[in-house]
Amino acid sequence: MDYNIVPLNELISQFSRLPGIGKKTAQRLAFNILQQPEENAQKFAEALINARKQIHLCKCCQSLTDRELCLICDDSRRNHSVICVVESPKDVLAFERTKEFNGVYHVLHGIISPLDGIGPEHLKIKELMARLSCENITEIIMATNPTVEGEATASYISRLVKPMGIKVTRLAYGIPVGGDLEYADEYTLARALEGRNEI
Amino acid sequence: MDYNIVPLNELISQFSRLPGIGKKTAQRLAFNILQQPEENAQKFAEALINARKQIHLCKCCQSLTDRELCLICDDSRRNHSVICVVESPKDVLAFERTKEFNGVYHVLHGIISPLDGIGPEHLKIKELMARLSCENITEIIMATNPTVEGEATASYISRLVKPMGIKVTRLAYGIPVGGDLEYADEYTLARALEGRNEI
Repeated sequence: MDYNIVPLNELISQFSRLPGIGKKTAQRLAFNILQQPEENAQKFAEALINARKQIHLCKCCQSLTDRELCLICDDSRRNHSVICVVESPKDVLAFERTKEFNGVYHVLHGIISPLDGIGPEHLKIKELMARLSCENITEIIMATNPTVEGEATASYISRLVKPMGIKVTRLAYGIPVGGDLEYADEYTLARALEGRNEI
Repeated sequence: MDYNIVPLNELISQFSRLPGIGKKTAQRLAFNILQQPEENAQKFAEALINARKQIHLCKCCQSLTDRELCLICDDSRRNHSVICVVESPKDVLAFERTKEFNGVYHVLHGIISPLDGIGPEHLKIKELMARLSCENITEIIMATNPTVEGEATASYISRLVKPMGIKVTRLAYGIPVGGDLEYADEYTLARALEGRNEI
């Protein structure tokens, strides 16, 4: 699959380095770029460079931002004494969409996963501890994913935080809204039963 | 789905303009770029600009190249009196992979498709006619796709070329090698029967 055209091969190889983009798709995308006006390629290139250069981690919550503090950390109307701890910046967006959470976030950028060689030192746990010791925090909500690694990370952090006298909570497990009991797995159903509320 | 981060939104929108890339995939790709070292984004941007700037149509066969003449047109060992007419530069590559064709190509960049508003004037037919009148061509192989539009384009061009006393041929229809007769459609099978050869 060689076009003998160096710039084309280079563009195809750049596209195929992206996750989920195979050789064939990369070719299709590269041909699409060639068919577009030159200014579109220019704009795409600028978007790549600008995004990579201007976006960095918020110095407080470690989420992505192009400012010093992200919009959430910088918002004085939010409750800065409740921190929701999530795995990735995408999770922040998921919570923001609910419009139900008025606290702030802390992004770990991963979860503890010994099999992948990711230990606590690779996550933004130090930064979380620094926040807990200097800010006035009353509650930490552990909102890692409901997986084995997510659970392990949540309990690791809760062991560190509890001695500081800060309340640590975990998202509720249960049946998803609009779900069907018939298709719920037994673990989810058992947790839903365990966490039942009086109505 | 708004991150409130202008450079990130811009990168996501650039990715989602590519064919077959939806909003979710565009987000995933943009986050991947942010996780990579800055020099990778820089290289990607350069590849985009270089490909778009340096690649243009070969002035002879209208295929893609970064030179004045593409490597095939510029190769004196090839038979320049036989032209294989194809729809797109990808088709040139498909023939080159067979290693069976030693002639040269002409890329139409599309096919006649009245429903999409594409007439003969939108294709590189003028350029083909110019080659036929000044070069010494003995045969034109019509290698458009075996679709209604491909057929129509082939017969349109053959009507233009035949009066010039140049032989016009069409790719053979038949059962694909390694195919299964049981799954061949009736039109293909009828054509295979019609074009049967003595063994």
